[in-house]
Amino acid sequence: MSFYVYTLGAGIVALLFSLFAAVATLKKPEGTEKMKEISKAIRDGSKAYLNRQLKTIVVFGIILAIVFFFLKNGGQLDIAFATGAIASYLTAFIGMNVAVRANVRTAKSAEKGTKSAFDTAILGGSVTGFVAVGLGLIAISLLFMYLTISNVAILIGFGFGASLISLFARVGGGIFTKAADVGADLVGKSELGLPEDDPRNPAVIADNVGDNVGDCAGMSADVFESYAVTLVAALLIAASISGAAFHLFSYPLMIAAVGIIGSLASMFFMRARGNNAVRALYMGIISAVIISAALDLALTILMHMPIFDFVAVLSGLVIAILIFWITDYFTGNQSKPVVKIATAAKGGAGTAVIMGLAVGLRSTWLPVLVIIIAILVSYASAGVYGIGIAAVGMLSLTATILTIDSFGPITDNAGGIAEMSGLPASVRKVTDHLDAIGNTTKATTKGYAIGGAALSAIALFVAFASAVGLTTLDVLNPLVVVGIFIGALLPFLFASFLMEAVGHAANLMVEEVRHQVKTIKGLMQGKAKPDYARAVDIATVNALKALVLPELVAILVPIGVGLLLGKAALGGLLVGMIPTSLMLALFMSNAGGAMDNAKKYIESGHFGGKGSPAHQAAIVGDTLGDPLKDTAGPSLNSMIKVVSTISILLAPIFVMYAVL
Amino acid sequence: MSFYVYTLGAGIVALLFSLFAAVATLKKPEGTEKMKEISKAIRDGSKAYLNRQLKTIVVFGIILAIVFFFLKNGGQLDIAFATGAIASYLTAFIGMNVAVRANVRTAKSAEKGTKSAFDTAILGGSVTGFVAVGLGLIAISLLFMYLTISNVAILIGFGFGASLISLFARVGGGIFTKAADVGADLVGKSELGLPEDDPRNPAVIADNVGDNVGDCAGMSADVFESYAVTLVAALLIAASISGAAFHLFSYPLMIAAVGIIGSLASMFFMRARGNNAVRALYMGIISAVIISAALDLALTILMHMPIFDFVAVLSGLVIAILIFWITDYFTGNQSKPVVKIATAAKGGAGTAVIMGLAVGLRSTWLPVLVIIIAILVSYASAGVYGIGIAAVGMLSLTATILTIDSFGPITDNAGGIAEMSGLPASVRKVTDHLDAIGNTTKATTKGYAIGGAALSAIALFVAFASAVGLTTLDVLNPLVVVGIFIGALLPFLFASFLMEAVGHAANLMVEEVRHQVKTIKGLMQGKAKPDYARAVDIATVNALKALVLPELVAILVPIGVGLLLGKAALGGLLVGMIPTSLMLALFMSNAGGAMDNAKKYIESGHFGGKGSPAHQAAIVGDTLGDPLKDTAGPSLNSMIKVVSTISILLAPIFVMYAVL
Repeated sequence: MSFYVYTLGAGIVALLFSLFAAVATLKKPEGTEKMKEISKAIRDGSKAYLNRQLKTIVVFGIILAIVFFFLKNGGQLDIAFATGAIASYLTAFIGMNVAVRANVRTAKSAEKGTKSAFDTAILGGSVTGFVAVGLGLIAISLLFMYLTISNVAILIGFGFGASLISLFARVGGGIFTKAADVGADLVGKSELGLPEDDPRNPAVIADNVGDNVGDCAGMSADVFESYAVTLVAALLIAASISGAAFHLFSYPLMIAAVGIIGSLASMFFMRARGNNAVRALYMGIISAVIISAALDLALTILMHMPIFDFVAVLSGLVIAILIFWITDYFTGNQSKPVVKIATAAKGGAGTAVIMGLAVGLRSTWLPVLVIIIAILVSYASAGVYGIGIAAVGMLSLTATILTIDSFGPITDNAGGIAEMSGLPASVRKVTDHLDAIGNTTKATTKGYAIGGAALSAIALFVAFASAVGLTTLDVLNPLVVVGIFIGALLPFLFASFLMEAVGHAANLMVEEVRHQVKTIKGLMQGKAKPDYARAVDIATVNALKALVLPELVAILVPIGVGLLLGKAALGGLLVGMIPTSLMLALFMSNAGGAMDNAKKYIESGHFGGKGSPAHQAAIVGDTLGDPLKDTAGPSLNSMIKVVSTISILLAPIFVMYAVL
Repeated sequence: MSFYVYTLGAGIVALLFSLFAAVATLKKPEGTEKMKEISKAIRDGSKAYLNRQLKTIVVFGIILAIVFFFLKNGGQLDIAFATGAIASYLTAFIGMNVAVRANVRTAKSAEKGTKSAFDTAILGGSVTGFVAVGLGLIAISLLFMYLTISNVAILIGFGFGASLISLFARVGGGIFTKAADVGADLVGKSELGLPEDDPRNPAVIADNVGDNVGDCAGMSADVFESYAVTLVAALLIAASISGAAFHLFSYPLMIAAVGIIGSLASMFFMRARGNNAVRALYMGIISAVIISAALDLALTILMHMPIFDFVAVLSGLVIAILIFWITDYFTGNQSKPVVKIATAAKGGAGTAVIMGLAVGLRSTWLPVLVIIIAILVSYASAGVYGIGIAAVGMLSLTATILTIDSFGPITDNAGGIAEMSGLPASVRKVTDHLDAIGNTTKATTKGYAIGGAALSAIALFVAFASAVGLTTLDVLNPLVVVGIFIGALLPFLFASFLMEAVGHAANLMVEEVRHQVKTIKGLMQGKAKPDYARAVDIATVNALKALVLPELVAILVPIGVGLLLGKAALGGLLVGMIPTSLMLALFMSNAGGAMDNAKKYIESGHFGGKGSPAHQAAIVGDTLGDPLKDTAGPSLNSMIKVVSTISILLAPIFVMYAVL
């Protein structure tokens, strides 16, 4: 069983590297007392939110664990479920805890210039990335070792555990961050004319907390989940191939191990030369792909796998980089679609949002084309197994992608701390520059997360179909038709809850900020401090309140369909849901990203610059884009995997007990 | 063959009634010279647009007819195709030509009060409604008589002809109307502070033309198409049942005939008592449903059909009325969701549009639930045939629905004419009241059109699957998976073209209006006349320009998928497209309708009323909602049927020549 040495070894290397990165980050200087104080406020708010969210998760988790216990192999299933949930939570928890310490250190290093600040933020971000892959690969390797091939299906419990945490982190964090952000902007920037991150804005700490609980914890749980679920799906697909050689199981895990080495190597390329930080990030992702591809080729030859298996894996790696570029094209700062939105903003807020949604709708076609080609290539190379390993290939870049992604909230926070603690303008200039880059990388990594979620959902569906023997859908069976419609409906319904939650919570935040500005004397003159904690509390309470309904829908609808309408309808539900969710998620994320950058494009001096009518119009677009891109859009990733994994998990019951 | 007597007879009765209604409308007084002049300007603009659009249609039509000619039974197919296209075009043409004459007469009758104006508008609107069902039923009856059961499949050519016209009318008309509307509002209302329909606004005639070419011609072609396609689908489903009795074919046609009688009877109930116009409309639809249901029951018994067939038909009738109510709930003037959006507008334009989209997303679930239940009930009652006749049941109300729908643009125009020709405020008050009702009915009939389109697409899909023997989809076949993804992508891509076209054309309109206001001396003082024709021309040219790309996508994508990837992939495409389009269309239409009424809710005095910050915010929402509800959303109806009918039409070729 020598291959475990490699996968466990690679996992341990990843954890050791993240430990090293965490220690190195914490060793860096924290700056002034004022900076420490602000950083602590952000840290406390973030921790408080995560702890309160944990309570809700535990309640859901225990109920589900009890249900699972009564299934076949219930004990093992619960172990897998708990492992998945804990590993996912740990990833989010550790990543966020380092991020909330890396922020102030990045602000401090910004005094020395772009390069120093960039390296600090990347170092801090890499902790999340490598914890995710380390924990994921070690946990799956150990579970697989313990379960053996005969009951590998239990691994789906692991995937569901990860999905459940991801759903909470994405939905709760997403509502929190945008309630705070929109609330802070609407009153602070628009009504009071305060700059971003002004310490007189009562919602400013909540806004910075939101970056951590949403963009950092939410994103890492999301991508961890895709990583875990994809590996599980590949193993399930292998298990469904009759008389599958053991190599079919070890190969995807080895690809993941190779991905860790590739990502680690890419860290050496992700260093700013002079002030060119964008180039460093691109170098990072490109080097990760090239090194991983080379190692995957070697691995394929050494393991005596068919060379076409490598082609499938390669197609997954290529998708990753293509989706990066495509997202950058649709949402990048100077890109044609973004300039179109900015131009439309000259006609007012109405035409700006019309064009923003148009760009979002349009942006779906290229990623879908890329995914379609990858499906065809990987299937032609190695059948359904090829689809599984293509997904693994794409997700094997997780460490690099999460590093680049976490860079975003860290630099965003660093800018906030620099502003609030009154550091010199030169520092703020450095953090602003990095923050702008972080905004683009947040958008592009979101594209990766959506693509990865779609591919892993497809792999999961293939595993589901193979496992329960549902290889054909009877499209003249009305139950299947009904299932397909319910599946297509789910993402729309789910997204509506999140959009409404943000709208509602943001309005409460607006009222609170207006109230504080009115009642706290000397606030606007900077003589009195606002009550930051109240604003954090409003975001926390409302995010947790709004969390329950969408969670229940995502968990209960597939159960209800399975129990009432049976297995075929549930298959229909997955078929209806996966593509629709992909489209809606791409539309929402890219519309939001593009409207965000259209605003920044105007702010950089076009069409009248800051304060012009076009700018005011673009701000409206940005406000609409916020919950689209940071709450509703990405939460759909988590939703489709919760629905998929619970469908597979409970499929045996539906087969036995379905009413119709 | 006695049943033809009834269907042809009912069709002739419908045409005679519409002739009577047209003559009665034209006999009404036209009012002052000024009114006549304005009405003529609207009429000329509408006709000019329709004529120019026709040229593009003819080019497309001839190319397609040549292609079809080389298919099996190509000559017959071309006859069916031409008949469908001509019948659809005639419906739109006649309906619109009466509407552009009914508008000025409605304005004139408004001098006598609400009842008189209401009756005039309904009378004018009924022409469209009864021409549609008359032409549709007569054409299908004759074609069916001529073709006989053995090659009933050729009827799909008729459906495609109707779909093609509908696609042009919906897309072109939709872009025209919203480019003009948004352009007129943005400069006229927001920048210059002019009231709605002020004659000093250079885009005001274009705006009124848009109501006719979009809301009137576009809608009637859309619903005519659903009507035609649904009847064809029911006949195809009957043909797919081996050894089907002739009754299975005559029954759906007889239901359509009965629907004409029910709709005709409902006209007697659609009369305003005093000033209660809303009640009259509700009475109209409810009486149409009850009378049709009673006649359908009698028909079922007389034809010795199983009583469960009646249950299926009834489920279709019930959907119609439920979707009416549901749409009214989500978009009605005082409804909870609308008030939510208005409340969110207090926080600014950003939160208003967030809540508007949230309401639109949410509004999908109830219509889908209703459709799902109808599918289950009708299938349980009579198998796949039940789904076909349920759709026919729903669409048998077409005449009543189109009457109510056409009422909208007629009263909208009447208000414009009253304003522009300086009629007393009391007249304007009457037309405003009716216009507000028209806005609600436009939204609810749109819900009906979307539901009807979905149901007819499902029936069409069932027919397709039965006809080409594709009763199961192999979901592990990557070509099927790819087809599903392309199908889900299509509505997003298609909608993006339309949103962008409106954004672009509206911006040009804004520039033109600003230019005229600046360069024409005395314009704002009412001393000089604006150049209305220029504005009409801009809307015309840009609508026609923007028409081509979405049309090509809707026609070429299914052909490309069929030729390259084969029949199974094409089946996947339909499965992916139909539910996704339904969701997107409901989301867009209802979001737009709700934001429109949220603005009106504020205008009626809430949250500060007209001119308040909340009102400004709600106007932005309304502007975004315009292309969502009147261009992109409803155009999806036409798109899914063009794609469905061309797929069925060319299926034999794809079976023979597909590359993969």
